Amino acid sequence: MSARRVSILGATGSVGTATLDLIGRAAPGQYKVVALTAKTNAAELARQAIRFQAECVAIADPAAAPALQQALKDHPGIEIGVGEDAVCDVAARDADWTMAAIVGAAGLKPTLAALRQGRALAFANKECLVCAGSLFMDEAARCGTTLLPVDSEHNAVFQVFDRAHREAIRSITLTASGGPFREATREVMARASRADALAHPTWEMGAKISIDSATMMNKGLEVIEACWLFDLAPERVEVVVHPQSIVHGMVEYADGSLLAQLGSPDMRTPIASALAWPERMAAPVERLRLTDIARLDFEPPDLTRFPAIRLAREAMEAGGIAPAVLNAANEIAVEAFLADRIGFLDIASGVEQVLERSLSDADMPRSLTAFEDVFAIDHRARQMARDLMVERLTHS
Amino acid sequence: MSARRVSILGATGSVGTATLDLIGRAAPGQYKVVALTAKTNAAELARQAIRFQAECVAIADPAAAPALQQALKDHPGIEIGVGEDAVCDVAARDADWTMAAIVGAAGLKPTLAALRQGRALAFANKECLVCAGSLFMDEAARCGTTLLPVDSEHNAVFQVFDRAHREAIRSITLTASGGPFREATREVMARASRADALAHPTWEMGAKISIDSATMMNKGLEVIEACWLFDLAPERVEVVVHPQSIVHGMVEYADGSLLAQLGSPDMRTPIASALAWPERMAAPVERLRLTDIARLDFEPPDLTRFPAIRLAREAMEAGGIAPAVLNAANEIAVEAFLADRIGFLDIASGVEQVLERSLSDADMPRSLTAFEDVFAIDHRARQMARDLMVERLTHS
Repeated sequence: MSARRVSILGATGSVGTATLDLIGRAAPGQYKVVALTAKTNAAELARQAIRFQAECVAIADPAAAPALQQALKDHPGIEIGVGEDAVCDVAARDADWTMAAIVGAAGLKPTLAALRQGRALAFANKECLVCAGSLFMDEAARCGTTLLPVDSEHNAVFQVFDRAHREAIRSITLTASGGPFREATREVMARASRADALAHPTWEMGAKISIDSATMMNKGLEVIEACWLFDLAPERVEVVVHPQSIVHGMVEYADGSLLAQLGSPDMRTPIASALAWPERMAAPVERLRLTDIARLDFEPPDLTRFPAIRLAREAMEAGGIAPAVLNAANEIAVEAFLADRIGFLDIASGVEQVLERSLSDADMPRSLTAFEDVFAIDHRARQMARDLMVERLTHS
Repeated sequence: MSARRVSILGATGSVGTATLDLIGRAAPGQYKVVALTAKTNAAELARQAIRFQAECVAIADPAAAPALQQALKDHPGIEIGVGEDAVCDVAARDADWTMAAIVGAAGLKPTLAALRQGRALAFANKECLVCAGSLFMDEAARCGTTLLPVDSEHNAVFQVFDRAHREAIRSITLTASGGPFREATREVMARASRADALAHPTWEMGAKISIDSATMMNKGLEVIEACWLFDLAPERVEVVVHPQSIVHGMVEYADGSLLAQLGSPDMRTPIASALAWPERMAAPVERLRLTDIARLDFEPPDLTRFPAIRLAREAMEAGGIAPAVLNAANEIAVEAFLADRIGFLDIASGVEQVLERSLSDADMPRSLTAFEDVFAIDHRARQMARDLMVERLTHS
């Protein structure tokens, strides 16, 4: 068997490094690293490129280019690209499998370039599906690309989703830890500090995603992703709060079977699942012992305290520009909360207000029909959200 | 698509009637009932044959033949067979799918006849695999038969067992409700009455299987079945006590994924899964709502209070005649307990003693190489078990 050619977009982030770790543990000759990209971390990118004998690297930030060139000066076999266009160029380089792990809107273009190869695309970037789901799915269908979700919930569903018998699938369920405010009153949530909201009970994550977990907007965005990925209406994508984060996702079949994927909260399992797909590989993950965990709890999410899930469902139902507006407004609101400029509950209410205003906003694109629209919608929604934050501060 | 030709051996029992119920709910023309068999219930067998326009029926007990003939006298199109050989004859009649649901040793020959057709064989009969696992599996491989387990635990494992990637499977887990004595002390178990032991918490079952559930011999026998069915060593078949009986079985993969099948405790789900395999069909089963169940518990089985699991593993490891001896001795011991002749803990200790004595018993066959051996081993083990019960009564 010839080596599987793999590229990693966002190689120096947590998903990228975990992917390379797994590749490093695989049998020699099983994988050939084609392209690695990073935003600014030249030192780590160079280390990875040398260790895995990458064909090429690209760094998005031109300011980091000199450091990268210096670090690779003794490795003339590794091509170096600089700037966002270079990242897209290496993403388009012939590979059997690409991990799209660039965070945020910056991931859209490179992910699209990789997707257009028509091979296997593992993706950890939320924005592609949340903001441009229809475009991405249409393009994947046109190019014959297999999308492999890496997010633990979607990967779980993917593992037990029988695509050959879609008609027998009744619903899918994404689990949510419930975040730090699972048992908090609305009053406690209203005066929650940045530190309170960052205290995630089970997963270790960055600030933005921790706040999304606290508001449960994270789960709302995942519902949108799941609708696209599995071609399901929002009402068939259920959210269940499961504080232990052991069951990650489930698929309900017409015969009453509920198939589930369980695992320790460790990203290496879904990454390994996507990397080896359709085979299976070993991952250096602690074995899950249900008898040690002893107890799994499940409860419905409280949509009064966590309106973000409702907002995401409504945005998905509305379609068009709404999910992109939701995502952009949420990013600005979370930034404002992290900067102590708004309260915790203001995050969701701010998003809701931007969604409402966007319906009649003269500068907001009315539809989403090309990838350029995504950036225009994102830009305008951020502006509206910032204006709203300023208004609120002025009035408070 | 032409109708799938199906036969049901043991049609009037609970699995048989549930299977026919599902066939009755399927689209017209999807299934064609070939053969139905029963032991003694002529009235029900005739009703089923008429309703489903079966090609033939067979009744094992000759005493029930006149009633069957009388009930079918206006249906000359339905062939009637009488006696155990007739049951085997109709089991061999051309069918795409056969449900082997005859209970006990009586199921061996008809199930074998159906298996030899080399099609799909759904089976709910434990004895075939427990007592004659090597012979059945060899014969299934030789004939190219697909074995579809109907027992809820094995069916669950089957649903998430990726046969194409066996090398990535680390272990499988069968769950156990723990039975009525899950939380009882050994002292309470020692003086448990027939009524105490029959009080099963989650499944409604017959007396024999309820006692097997109380001793957990049921799970021991299932471990043996699973070893054969999934070609795994006993140490890779785990048992976890799960009192809610919602998770039925799990498969652990090398990447850390644990895939599980969950469902309400309703036999129609595994039966529907086997009936429609490799497709999926709708089953009239209550939808499982994890948020209503709210909590799932898992604990290791206590092998001191439930030595049956250890005995079954040891019998499987010993191989040869041991599993058949275990099964026969257990049947006699359960009968003796149900007749108030021995105490609850004497069931397992009696089985253990028969297993030990069988090693040096002059009248016990030494190996299991032909199906005839199964009956000889069964016969001798029952005799030894009965002798043991008499001895014990004499000494007590």
